[in-house]
Amino acid sequence: MKDRKAWTVSVGDELLTGESLDTHGRSIARRLASIGVAVVAHAVVGDDRRRLAHTMREAIEGGGLLIVTGGLGPTLDDVTREAFAEALGEPLEEDPVGLEHVEEWFRSTGREMPPGNRRQALRPRSSRLLHNAHGTAPGFWGTRSGATYVALPGPPREMAPMLDLALAEIMPEASPRPTRLVRAFGIGESTAARRIETLMERTRRLPVATTVSDSIVTARIRGASADDEGEVATLAKTVREAWAPYAFDDGSLGLAGVVGEGCEARGVRVSTAESCTGGLLGGELTAVPGSSVWYVGGVVAYENERKVEDLGVPAALIDAAGAVSSDVAKSMADGVRSRTGSDIGLSTTGIAGPGGGTEDKPVGTVWIGVSDAQGTVARCFQFPGERSLVRRRTVLATLQILRFRWDRVDAALLWEIDA
Amino acid sequence: MKDRKAWTVSVGDELLTGESLDTHGRSIARRLASIGVAVVAHAVVGDDRRRLAHTMREAIEGGGLLIVTGGLGPTLDDVTREAFAEALGEPLEEDPVGLEHVEEWFRSTGREMPPGNRRQALRPRSSRLLHNAHGTAPGFWGTRSGATYVALPGPPREMAPMLDLALAEIMPEASPRPTRLVRAFGIGESTAARRIETLMERTRRLPVATTVSDSIVTARIRGASADDEGEVATLAKTVREAWAPYAFDDGSLGLAGVVGEGCEARGVRVSTAESCTGGLLGGELTAVPGSSVWYVGGVVAYENERKVEDLGVPAALIDAAGAVSSDVAKSMADGVRSRTGSDIGLSTTGIAGPGGGTEDKPVGTVWIGVSDAQGTVARCFQFPGERSLVRRRTVLATLQILRFRWDRVDAALLWEIDA
Repeated sequence: MKDRKAWTVSVGDELLTGESLDTHGRSIARRLASIGVAVVAHAVVGDDRRRLAHTMREAIEGGGLLIVTGGLGPTLDDVTREAFAEALGEPLEEDPVGLEHVEEWFRSTGREMPPGNRRQALRPRSSRLLHNAHGTAPGFWGTRSGATYVALPGPPREMAPMLDLALAEIMPEASPRPTRLVRAFGIGESTAARRIETLMERTRRLPVATTVSDSIVTARIRGASADDEGEVATLAKTVREAWAPYAFDDGSLGLAGVVGEGCEARGVRVSTAESCTGGLLGGELTAVPGSSVWYVGGVVAYENERKVEDLGVPAALIDAAGAVSSDVAKSMADGVRSRTGSDIGLSTTGIAGPGGGTEDKPVGTVWIGVSDAQGTVARCFQFPGERSLVRRRTVLATLQILRFRWDRVDAALLWEIDA
Repeated sequence: MKDRKAWTVSVGDELLTGESLDTHGRSIARRLASIGVAVVAHAVVGDDRRRLAHTMREAIEGGGLLIVTGGLGPTLDDVTREAFAEALGEPLEEDPVGLEHVEEWFRSTGREMPPGNRRQALRPRSSRLLHNAHGTAPGFWGTRSGATYVALPGPPREMAPMLDLALAEIMPEASPRPTRLVRAFGIGESTAARRIETLMERTRRLPVATTVSDSIVTARIRGASADDEGEVATLAKTVREAWAPYAFDDGSLGLAGVVGEGCEARGVRVSTAESCTGGLLGGELTAVPGSSVWYVGGVVAYENERKVEDLGVPAALIDAAGAVSSDVAKSMADGVRSRTGSDIGLSTTGIAGPGGGTEDKPVGTVWIGVSDAQGTVARCFQFPGERSLVRRRTVLATLQILRFRWDRVDAALLWEIDA
C-alpha cells in the first residue's frame, strides 16, 4: 500500500433502487479512520460486473486500499468475484479451504448444500482467503501494483469481524490517529468559519473542517499520526476560544449533557414549563442518563388554561400581553420553579407554525424564560424553518441561555432579536 | 437526457470520515424510481475539487442525469461550484437573482450577510438557477452533450423540494408511478413478512417490499406505470388487512397524526403524565400541526414528588408497588385526566436505563396507562435496546394502545408482557 488512503465500494442493486440504505460506507470509514487511513471516495455500484470491474481498476490505480463489500452470495447476480477477476486480469480458482467451509456450514445446520453455493469458494488466483465465522461466503484479499484489495460479504454481522481480520493481516502496525471535535450552538456556520479561517486553509498540515447538523456547528481536528496528539489538542483549544462563548464541548455529551454536568457541579435542580416545545425540552434533558439527579420534571402548558392553573400565570397577563410574550415566559419560569421547589425554572412559549402567526408575531417567534436565584429573564427569538426546526432550535437555545447565565456571558445568540 | 438513467454524487468530507451517514443516495434513488429513472451508480466524494470534477465528467459522459448534493455552502471547502466549472470547462458567474436571494435571506432574519456567502450566488455560466425556499444556497442545473446535471445543497430539508423543482423543469412529462405505503407498529418484521409472504415474491409483477425503521414496519407497493393505480390500491388494502390491527395508515401522518385525527373525529382532548419519557410523548403529539385542538398539555412527573404533588398519586402507592407499576401508571393517567379536565389521560413510567434496573424490573420495563370514560388500564412492556430506543418505543406503544382502545382491539403488542 503506497500511502494510507482507501477506496470503498458497496455492491448491490438494492442500494441503488432506494430499497436499502448503505451504511457500510460510514462504518468502514470509521474503522479505517481509527487507524489513520482516510477514505478518498466511496462508490455504490449495482450488480453489474463490467461497471464494478471499472470502479475496481480505478481504485487499484490509486494505489491504496480497496475494500469491496457485497456481491459474494451464491446467486448469479452476485458478481464481485467475477468483477475482481476481470479487474485483476486473472482467473478465478476454487479454494479448497473455502469449499470445505461452505460445505461444513450447510452440514452443521443439517441442510444439503445447493449446487450454486459452490461458487462461493471461488477467488482470484493470487488472492488469499478470509474466514467468515458468521456466514457461508468467505472473503479474500490480495495485492496488485502497490494497492491492496479486500472483498467482504455484505451482511454487517459477517462483514465487521472479517474487516478486522483483514486489517490485522494487512496492517499489523496500524495505530489510531488522535481526533477532537468542537461544537457550538448559536453562531452561524459562515461566522464560525470566518473566526477560524486560517486554521481551515487546505494547505495546512492539519486543516480544521467544519460541518453543520441539527443547527450545531462542528469543527473536526484530526492528527496525521499518534504523534499529533498535542497539536490536535492545541488546535481544539484554539477553535474553542475562537468560538467562545458559543462552543460548548469537544466530547459527545451534547448540550443537554453539558447542562446536566453544570447542574451537578453547582448542586442545582432544574424544572421545565413548556408551551411550544410541548415536552421536547424535558425529553432532551432526560435523554441524559442519570438526569433524575438534577431534573425534577415540570409542566407541559400547551393550552392557556394549563399556564394559569398549573403554573400560576395570571390570566390577565395572558389577555394583556398574549401567551407569546416576555411577561408570560417569565411568569411560566417563575411558576414552575416555585411550584416544584427547584433551583432553576426554564420556560418556552412561541409560535412554531405552520398556523398561528400574525404580523406582529410571525411563525418562528419564541420567548424563552429562565428563573433562578439571581432573578428572571426572558429572551426573544425569530427562528427560521418549519415547525420541527423552530421547536428543536428553541430547545437548544434554552439550554445555551442557561449556560450563558452561569458563565455571566452577555452575547446574543443566532436568531435572537430585540423585542 | 439520452435515457432514463441517473448518476448521483454526495459531497462532503464528513461523509468519508464516518462522521455523518449519507442518506441522499437512498432518498434520491427513491424519488427517481417514482418517475421511472434508475440510478446506475452513486458516489461519495470529499471536499476535493479535482476528484469531484473527475467524477462529474465520467457521469456526464454517461449521458443521463447527474445529481450532485452538498458542497454549496459559503466556506472555502465547499467546492461543488468550482468542480462543475472545471468539469464543464466554463467559468462561474454571479447570478443576480441568486445574490438577491442570499442577501434577502440574511435581511429577513435581521443579520448582515457575511462576505463569504456571496460565493453562494455563483453558478456555471450556461446553467440555470434553482430557487432554495429553505436556506441560503441556491442550486443550479444545465445540460451538456446529451446529459443533464443538477447541483443541490446538502441539508435534506432544502434538497428535497429543490429536487422536485428540478425534476419538474427537466422532465415535465415524467408521470409519477403510483406508490402506497402501509405502516405498522407492534408487530415484528419477520412476522409481518410472513403474513404477506406470497405478495413479496420477487417473481411477481409488482412485488411488495418491507423495511423497518424507528421500530415501524413499512410495506412499499409501487406500480410500473400510472395504469397500475387500482392494482396498487388493492395490494395496499390486502397488506393492511394482513397486518391488522397493527397497520395504522398508508399516508405520512405518523401515529401521532392518526391519534390526532381520531381525537378530532371523536371530539375528545388528551393530556399526558410522563415519567420515563420525560416529555417525549407530549413532544410527539405536539409535532402534529394544529394539535392544540385536541391536546391540552400535562405533567412531566420525573421525580416521585411530582407524581404525588402534581398528579395526586398516593405516596403510599409508590412505596408499596414502586414507581414502575401498574397501580402508579393508572393513578398517573387518572390524575392528569382529572386535573386537566381532559377526556383521556395517558401515562408512562418505566426504567429506560442504562441504570436503575433490578432483577424483578430489568432495564426496558415500562408501564403505560390510559384513563378515559370507559375506565383505566395499564399494560406492561419489556422493551429491548438502549435508553433512547426504550423511550421511543414507549411513545409509539402508548399511541397504539389508545388506537386499540378506540377500535376495541384486544391484541398484544410486540414486547408486551404479562405482569
